[in-house]
Amino acid sequence: MSNSTVKNTKKHYEITKQSEDFNEWFNELIIKAELADYAPVRGCMIIRPRGYAIWENIRDALDAKFKETGHVNAYFPLLIPESFLKKEAEHVEGFAPHCAVVTHGGGKELEEPLVVRPTSETVIWNAYKNWINSYRDLPLLINQWANVVRWEMRTKLFLRTMEFLWQEGHTAHATFEEAEEESMKMLRVYENICEEWMAVPVVCGQKTEHEKFAGAHHTYTIEVMTQDLKAIQNGTSHHLGQSFAKAFDVKFQNEKGDLEYVYATSWGVTTRMIGALIMVHSDDKGLVLPPRISPTQVAIVPMGRDEATREKTYAEAERVATLLKDTKWRDANIRVEIDKREKETPGFKFNDWELKGACLRVEIGPKDLESSSCILARRDTYEKKTVALENVVDEITNSLEDMQVGLLAKAKQFRLDNIKRVDTWEEFEKTFDKEGGAGFILAHWDGTTETEKKIAELTKATIRCIPLEPFHPDDVKPGKCVYTGNESKQRVIFAKAY
Amino acid sequence: MSNSTVKNTKKHYEITKQSEDFNEWFNELIIKAELADYAPVRGCMIIRPRGYAIWENIRDALDAKFKETGHVNAYFPLLIPESFLKKEAEHVEGFAPHCAVVTHGGGKELEEPLVVRPTSETVIWNAYKNWINSYRDLPLLINQWANVVRWEMRTKLFLRTMEFLWQEGHTAHATFEEAEEESMKMLRVYENICEEWMAVPVVCGQKTEHEKFAGAHHTYTIEVMTQDLKAIQNGTSHHLGQSFAKAFDVKFQNEKGDLEYVYATSWGVTTRMIGALIMVHSDDKGLVLPPRISPTQVAIVPMGRDEATREKTYAEAERVATLLKDTKWRDANIRVEIDKREKETPGFKFNDWELKGACLRVEIGPKDLESSSCILARRDTYEKKTVALENVVDEITNSLEDMQVGLLAKAKQFRLDNIKRVDTWEEFEKTFDKEGGAGFILAHWDGTTETEKKIAELTKATIRCIPLEPFHPDDVKPGKCVYTGNESKQRVIFAKAY
Repeated sequence: MSNSTVKNTKKHYEITKQSEDFNEWFNELIIKAELADYAPVRGCMIIRPRGYAIWENIRDALDAKFKETGHVNAYFPLLIPESFLKKEAEHVEGFAPHCAVVTHGGGKELEEPLVVRPTSETVIWNAYKNWINSYRDLPLLINQWANVVRWEMRTKLFLRTMEFLWQEGHTAHATFEEAEEESMKMLRVYENICEEWMAVPVVCGQKTEHEKFAGAHHTYTIEVMTQDLKAIQNGTSHHLGQSFAKAFDVKFQNEKGDLEYVYATSWGVTTRMIGALIMVHSDDKGLVLPPRISPTQVAIVPMGRDEATREKTYAEAERVATLLKDTKWRDANIRVEIDKREKETPGFKFNDWELKGACLRVEIGPKDLESSSCILARRDTYEKKTVALENVVDEITNSLEDMQVGLLAKAKQFRLDNIKRVDTWEEFEKTFDKEGGAGFILAHWDGTTETEKKIAELTKATIRCIPLEPFHPDDVKPGKCVYTGNESKQRVIFAKAY
Repeated sequence: MSNSTVKNTKKHYEITKQSEDFNEWFNELIIKAELADYAPVRGCMIIRPRGYAIWENIRDALDAKFKETGHVNAYFPLLIPESFLKKEAEHVEGFAPHCAVVTHGGGKELEEPLVVRPTSETVIWNAYKNWINSYRDLPLLINQWANVVRWEMRTKLFLRTMEFLWQEGHTAHATFEEAEEESMKMLRVYENICEEWMAVPVVCGQKTEHEKFAGAHHTYTIEVMTQDLKAIQNGTSHHLGQSFAKAFDVKFQNEKGDLEYVYATSWGVTTRMIGALIMVHSDDKGLVLPPRISPTQVAIVPMGRDEATREKTYAEAERVATLLKDTKWRDANIRVEIDKREKETPGFKFNDWELKGACLRVEIGPKDLESSSCILARRDTYEKKTVALENVVDEITNSLEDMQVGLLAKAKQFRLDNIKRVDTWEEFEKTFDKEGGAGFILAHWDGTTETEKKIAELTKATIRCIPLEPFHPDDVKPGKCVYTGNESKQRVIFAKAY
């Protein structure tokens, strides 16, 4: 994430093409669509109002699902004693190198340094020790919306920033099976929000031993394919077993009266999801957002060269906007903006709304008014059609629905077109022997960390996950490891990842 | 905020009486009602689900008002270069001694230390420099929901914690007058949420020069009177003038084409509001919450000694709960919980719901069912009445309404009873010459910081504000300063403050 300013030779709505430089396209789009800005501290970002509004929509959809599934929110402290991190052996190894450390407070050096939370398992399990005594206190189903800090060397807007916003669920259960059920349930909540709200198809899978969360028994993941054929880990759900309960001595009395360690899960998604969303749907003209999470579902552009004309088109724009705001599509009333910038040309405004990702654009000019119609333009397909004003609300709700469904279908087809089965090492190496992504490669693997590391070293491809549902029934039949030739239980997904 | 554990001799729902020890009452109530818990780091707190649910209700009410008044949310970084704080002279003096400082990241010492934001003016105005060019970019109306850290020596649950949650609005305007209008508008938003949602009466006033925000032109405040007759500053709205624009060189081109510095406001309320809420309404049995922000508006306790009876009362409880959940009172559907704890006695449950602040309790026993009735108990007045089950929804919505209105009226009357006008220094000293609060004392003051400091030194009473609206027309007539005898324009409010 460099602080280089965007080149000034282009018009404000022009961005580098994906095909020229995907990375530059992504950065320019974010800056020019005003989703985010660079912060004074290296690797941090400012989430601007248009970006934050997307996060609010994602957050509200998730929060409603969490509550539906019996969870409550709480808030745990930002600052954690350094010693806490050390209580779980794998955990400290995974996180200590990435911590920001507070050594001074109120003008004095602290006796014990405090880390800015990179994740909250330790401080939460320290509290759970006091809150859990009996099986009647279980399950404990708590979620937190918070900021966390992880010191990163290579950062990228939204995808990998030093500070990010997220939610972290932390649950406690009486049995291994209940914790398993919870971690899987929340994985499916994530899948649902990604696909049904963000129109982002995900592969649900299990992480390998090497890629799992530091301190987990095992980790589930949702993996996304981007338009440049790389993978993004879009969220994870961990079955923590009893490791944190043992590290923080959290026992409960079961129904028989015996003391047992508690089983745990944790699960989280972050503002990174916005990065994945952009990389899946957006194009060379700017942001493409699925209607359910787009802050601007409809941008109305009333036009007119003189004030008398504008008075009429503006009045019609207001009338249509009011109708739309009173109309419910899916879970919420339609979100509309009227563009009244008088110093800009219609062409400028059309480009600007394409850049900013308004799902639909309604153009109302004096000639349209004469024929009691308007132009309706769809952001994803660029389809433009003339629509009678009396039908405009129906046309718009239908278009929103089509776009929501269409974006998911298109992304699913794109993913399908870029999944490949590879069975020889020669072909595997060749597939990954280029800059950039190569799609999802389904290949056999012998199940060892040694082979996994070796393949990553040679090709930069990592195992994204062991899919929970095969793309094809043959994918879960035994075979020979693509690198060692040893026995393999099923194909796993290899890809280059962000 | 000591880490001492609550004494174990009492039953879990028993707390120290207000009259015995108000401070101990407050701490015990918070811990036993499970609103919050102590954190491992001194001065920090965990906001437990029952406390956080109150915050969610306050936050949602505020957020809706902010959006109604044209504001959008954004997110700025937690970590701020230490040098930023130094750019505004008064600001650094006010905040530098209270900062937590990150000196190490990713295992290395940083070249420049970073402060954990105590407030975000500096990092936000650094960004506004890039976002504001012309009068067309103004006003810029941004709010942020965030955590902040201020190193505090004497902390107290909710009222003064090292880390707290808040919102901070930061706006930019073309003229002094527009900034003034904004700071006043947001003060009135706070007043509205405090009185109409939290049933907490506030005095809107201006802070003295000595008490204003570090870096502000002037500061408005909302001040609350607690049941122990002290004052709580419950929120502030600052007119920042051009100080931050000058410190960060933020100019805009006005309509004539001239460059001018921008005018600013900032305004914030915090989780401290929950502390004020408790101190205004709650009693010796526990939490009393106004219905609009109570997470549990109705607790239904179905009873029965044997399973066959319970089957019937539980079914009736479910039926009533479903009816209530489908009923809208004010802005939202009624929030109901059914208490199905079988190992606890009815008496235990009644006490427990009083402790936890359920607004209304519905008791359904086998005898009630025989007469198709139930018992409805109100938390604030302890009034209990028998209600026909067929009228239960109407009775409940009426009771919620009565309680919402009644709590505000009661708190206003209490405040009125504890406002006193004092005109001699002898009486003034005597009034404050005791432990604890003495109510709001309206007295004349000569307008100098010197006198203000001297009075505080001698009596521990501080000037809470210069009220915007007098309690009585005579309060704004000139008089003689209670300490120096010099001329005074109007009475101001003195009190001991949290």
